[in-house]
Amino acid sequence: MADVVSSEAERRIVVAVDESEESIYALRWCLRNLPRPVSGDASESRDTFILVYARPTPPVYSAMDGTGYFFAQEVTANMDKYSRDLADAVMEKAKNICKEYANITVEAKICAGDARDVICQMVDKLGADLLVLGSHGYGFIKRALLGSVSDHCARNAKCPVLIVKR
Amino acid sequence: MADVVSSEAERRIVVAVDESEESIYALRWCLRNLPRPVSGDASESRDTFILVYARPTPPVYSAMDGTGYFFAQEVTANMDKYSRDLADAVMEKAKNICKEYANITVEAKICAGDARDVICQMVDKLGADLLVLGSHGYGFIKRALLGSVSDHCARNAKCPVLIVKR
Repeated sequence: MADVVSSEAERRIVVAVDESEESIYALRWCLRNLPRPVSGDASESRDTFILVYARPTPPVYSAMDGTGYFFAQEVTANMDKYSRDLADAVMEKAKNICKEYANITVEAKICAGDARDVICQMVDKLGADLLVLGSHGYGFIKRALLGSVSDHCARNAKCPVLIVKR
Repeated sequence: MADVVSSEAERRIVVAVDESEESIYALRWCLRNLPRPVSGDASESRDTFILVYARPTPPVYSAMDGTGYFFAQEVTANMDKYSRDLADAVMEKAKNICKEYANITVEAKICAGDARDVICQMVDKLGADLLVLGSHGYGFIKRALLGSVSDHCARNAKCPVLIVKR
């Protein structure tokens, strides 16, 4: 009879995080349900949770004239700063949530780009064993325009995909 | 610090099985990765795995004449028998695979109907904590005609959905 925790191999679990409540719920769900304890010590796990946040890239403005140029540069600089601050805030929150749970190894990756591409690329690059996503990250409008991030990743990520709904 | 196996509550994990290799792969993946051991006994788990198989319902023929009627009746009877035998064979295989793993509780449910409806209905009815599906159950043509079963369930099942790809 196989042992339920026979495999002591480290698993690399990528969790896509964003500013939505759904993604925080998904993170808590997998922290509660997925970690596999090291035999003999239920408070230790060999699993590595890799938090991935996709930071939108600021649009590029073409400069019509000097004023326009400086204005555009200022706007994009502000947008970029806001986007970086938001990314840091989301990651900080996610890392604190991980600390509430077991002694799991946590890594954080912030990448600029469209979430659908960033997440699938990170799964490949990191050789993930599992990708975890909230089902409704990204607002209705963005989802309507871009299509659901979870739909895209469920189809294209090269590993098992767990979609957690509230 | 929370214990990684703090929750000793029984989880009801629904695994959709069909005759495809993908669904058998998905079943093995979740048997290796999901069961949570009961503290102190790594070979025991409180998780219940519920195997769900959707058996296609035979089409209804309208009788043109006596001969046609008997012919149609014979055909549908044969199709129905084939479909029942196939369902039993798939379930038998799936249950044997479960036996290779830990002492988990396994239940088997065979329901007639479209896989997408049957699976989502069973998730509701059984109050599942997780639904596990292979990513490519059902052939290309059927998927093209009906849409992907995993896409449908990922969107509509009222619990977290794990899509396992080979």
